[in-house]
Amino acid sequence: MTPQCEPGSLLTALPSAPPEQAESLGELLADTWKVIVPGLTHWQHPAFLGYFPTNNSPASVLAEYITAGLGVQGMMWSTSPAATELEQVVTDWLAQALGLPDAFRHSSGRGGGVIQDSASSAVIVATAAALQRASQGRWRTAGTEGRYRMYCTERAHSCVSKGARLAGLGEPQLIATLPGTGRMDPDALSARIDDDRAAGLIPAVVVATVGTTDVCAVDPVPDIGQLCRREDVWLHVDAAYAGSATLCPEYRHLIDGIALADSYAVNAHKWMRTGTPCDVMWTSDRAALTDAMSISPSYLRNPATDSGRVVDFRDWQVPLGRPMRALKLWYVMRAHGVEGLREAIRHDIRLAAQLAHLITAEPGFHLEVHELGLVVFRRDTDDNTRDLLSRLQADPTLLCTPTSVNGRPAVRAAFGSPYVDADTVHYVWKRIRTHAQ
Amino acid sequence: MTPQCEPGSLLTALPSAPPEQAESLGELLADTWKVIVPGLTHWQHPAFLGYFPTNNSPASVLAEYITAGLGVQGMMWSTSPAATELEQVVTDWLAQALGLPDAFRHSSGRGGGVIQDSASSAVIVATAAALQRASQGRWRTAGTEGRYRMYCTERAHSCVSKGARLAGLGEPQLIATLPGTGRMDPDALSARIDDDRAAGLIPAVVVATVGTTDVCAVDPVPDIGQLCRREDVWLHVDAAYAGSATLCPEYRHLIDGIALADSYAVNAHKWMRTGTPCDVMWTSDRAALTDAMSISPSYLRNPATDSGRVVDFRDWQVPLGRPMRALKLWYVMRAHGVEGLREAIRHDIRLAAQLAHLITAEPGFHLEVHELGLVVFRRDTDDNTRDLLSRLQADPTLLCTPTSVNGRPAVRAAFGSPYVDADTVHYVWKRIRTHAQ
Ligand SMILES: Cc1ncc(COP(=O)(O)O)c(C=O)c1O
Ligand SMILES: Cc1ncc(COP(=O)(O)O)c(C=O)c1O
Repeated sequence: MTPQCEPGSLLTALPSAPPEQAESLGELLADTWKVIVPGLTHWQHPAFLGYFPTNNSPASVLAEYITAGLGVQGMMWSTSPAATELEQVVTDWLAQALGLPDAFRHSSGRGGGVIQDSASSAVIVATAAALQRASQGRWRTAGTEGRYRMYCTERAHSCVSKGARLAGLGEPQLIATLPGTGRMDPDALSARIDDDRAAGLIPAVVVATVGTTDVCAVDPVPDIGQLCRREDVWLHVDAAYAGSATLCPEYRHLIDGIALADSYAVNAHKWMRTGTPCDVMWTSDRAALTDAMSISPSYLRNPATDSGRVVDFRDWQVPLGRPMRALKLWYVMRAHGVEGLREAIRHDIRLAAQLAHLITAEPGFHLEVHELGLVVFRRDTDDNTRDLLSRLQADPTLLCTPTSVNGRPAVRAAFGSPYVDADTVHYVWKRIRTHAQ
Repeated sequence: MTPQCEPGSLLTALPSAPPEQAESLGELLADTWKVIVPGLTHWQHPAFLGYFPTNNSPASVLAEYITAGLGVQGMMWSTSPAATELEQVVTDWLAQALGLPDAFRHSSGRGGGVIQDSASSAVIVATAAALQRASQGRWRTAGTEGRYRMYCTERAHSCVSKGARLAGLGEPQLIATLPGTGRMDPDALSARIDDDRAAGLIPAVVVATVGTTDVCAVDPVPDIGQLCRREDVWLHVDAAYAGSATLCPEYRHLIDGIALADSYAVNAHKWMRTGTPCDVMWTSDRAALTDAMSISPSYLRNPATDSGRVVDFRDWQVPLGRPMRALKLWYVMRAHGVEGLREAIRHDIRLAAQLAHLITAEPGFHLEVHELGLVVFRRDTDDNTRDLLSRLQADPTLLCTPTSVNGRPAVRAAFGSPYVDADTVHYVWKRIRTHAQ
């Protein structure tokens, strides 16, 4: 499942000069199976429990094939109307299916969804919109001048720091978490915002996480949201993995208060049977996004854009060009039905519970977290945990990845692969116990 | 070829609520042909001469299908070694095929190529690297403080302004062009850099263009490059469209001086038979990129990364996650051979010359530009040109898009679609003449 190869092995196996003459697709297919596939980590393998999953499904793969064949580019409505409108429809559908407020739908007239490549890009886009609002557009010409501030906890994904950096804001301000929970402390946030204002700085954007990467912690969005409204600070909520769970009514509470957010992002490619890349981002203030990012040179002018009656997704994202991204989400939602997608989530959470149960019952093991499809555990001592981690990383038949909890090393097992089943849990548990001996 | 649909027609044709129950792939395919395809602008149609093209080819489509099926995620070497190493190999191959200096290859040890989604993202990445170098890393924590400057001409693509804005630099400084050429004036750049330094500002990055979107102008890279070296300013060269032409030795002169650039980007999806998205970006200073963008939380730690012996492409791009992007470029290069790709370029340039010839010979028409596959022309009066443009935009059987040259409206026809041929030129020309009457 994970390849047994040394760094550089493919570099030396392939010719160092490009082919001058054409070769047949048959040769390419043969080489793909011979030299590429053995060197891949198989993210779709049932025993891939590393990181957070990347999904696919027959419907998604078929849609990507068709998308590649059609080869259209939907930077603006006019450059493929159906690509744009399908994206409006499916992001509205998904907003409904996830229990998001009406304000996040295109049909509301003020908000809407857009498919980004990644949760990282969603952070960049949210930051641009936040700066647009906080500066009334002045950052676009004058730059950020080191005065705008972004806030998150140290458990926020590293893409938040990267986003702050790339936006010229430097490091985000790290807000303390409520003791023992990993959840952002809203009072600490409030105090920091006050201090920053007093120092002449401009609080621009808070990134709250629903389901942190390390332990699937959920920031208190209702409190943070109220504070952000009061302070007129943009609230972006990153639910890259956990967001898919709210397809099920019993997990809707994870996004309590989401109506107070200005933008929200879920990676459909993590836990919704859709191939990567497919991050779905919603905003209730699309004018802030498009005001932040639109530029209209003469070579992009067209009557539809000029009429103001259409959505041009180029102004909702970093790149100009974009493949038709909505087709695969449309295929996935229709081929599974929302009911099928819900079943998948429940199935994965049941398996995680099964593993958590086995861990709890085992002497010398300590369950740190079982939250949705994520299980985090450690051994009795840190040395034993480290030892287990390095044995697991050397085992090619499964993948669990490291994390740390309260400064102590721990093992993560994240469920969400479309192909994981009860047998996988037994197999993985058997290997873990063997490696722990 | 361009759809005849009103804004909102798909929005009303599709149900407003997501399906609860699963539907068959057969239904999806039928609906795709019934409601989606008629609403697309067919970028692969032979008479699509709008914008710059977006290519595909059987090899590329097949590779995208396989990529979707494998569903791996190559954020780090360890998460799919072959995905990373294949990208190193094909970007080295392409560097050779395009006549780029050795310093841009992974095999040089200091540089290398990476596949981005877009030329826009390449600008953002280059800017991050430039800020890293200009500030010795201080921007990462302190922000950009409105002191760093980006330079380009007003003919640079709008993605350069967007990139400057998103990086917190405000508007880029627009450098005058040499009279009548559209090419950046190196003396004007030099003077502006001097002025900015005198004012306590920090010149960080110049974006030069090889093949501007409006008229395919080529900035004088040798002079700009020498200046940038002397001033220690990052030089990014954007050759999104025109860059593919240097596959042919007779067009290598377009990138004279490219060894003086710090980074360089070509959209293989524009004119190299590769499906979108596939922008290939090279740098001769990969440490600047990775120093600018790497962040290593515990959940991404792994022995291969720790060893320092591998490339982790997450640190070369904005997003964390990434599909395996190199497979389609590998398929395209092998299935066509470099010779086949060269032939395609020459074929398209011949067709453009044919159209240019017809325009020159026609009374009441004025050829503004014929450069590579781009032809730009106007009618005798601006009113006539505007009239022609709006008739062309209403004609569903072909696509030419507007631009302006020296403040006057003009029509662009860009060759590079894989399916364009001599018949297309005759057909398009016949329609243009009809619309002009
Ligand atoms: C909570 C969270 N946010 C963001 C990301 C980054 O995702 P992407 O690769 O889409 O940028 C991840 C990735 O695992 C994540 O877990
Ligand atoms: C010269 C140039 N640079 C950049 C771009 C933007 O390309 P992308 O859509 O890949 O961001 C274009 C698009 O046409 C272009 O012509």
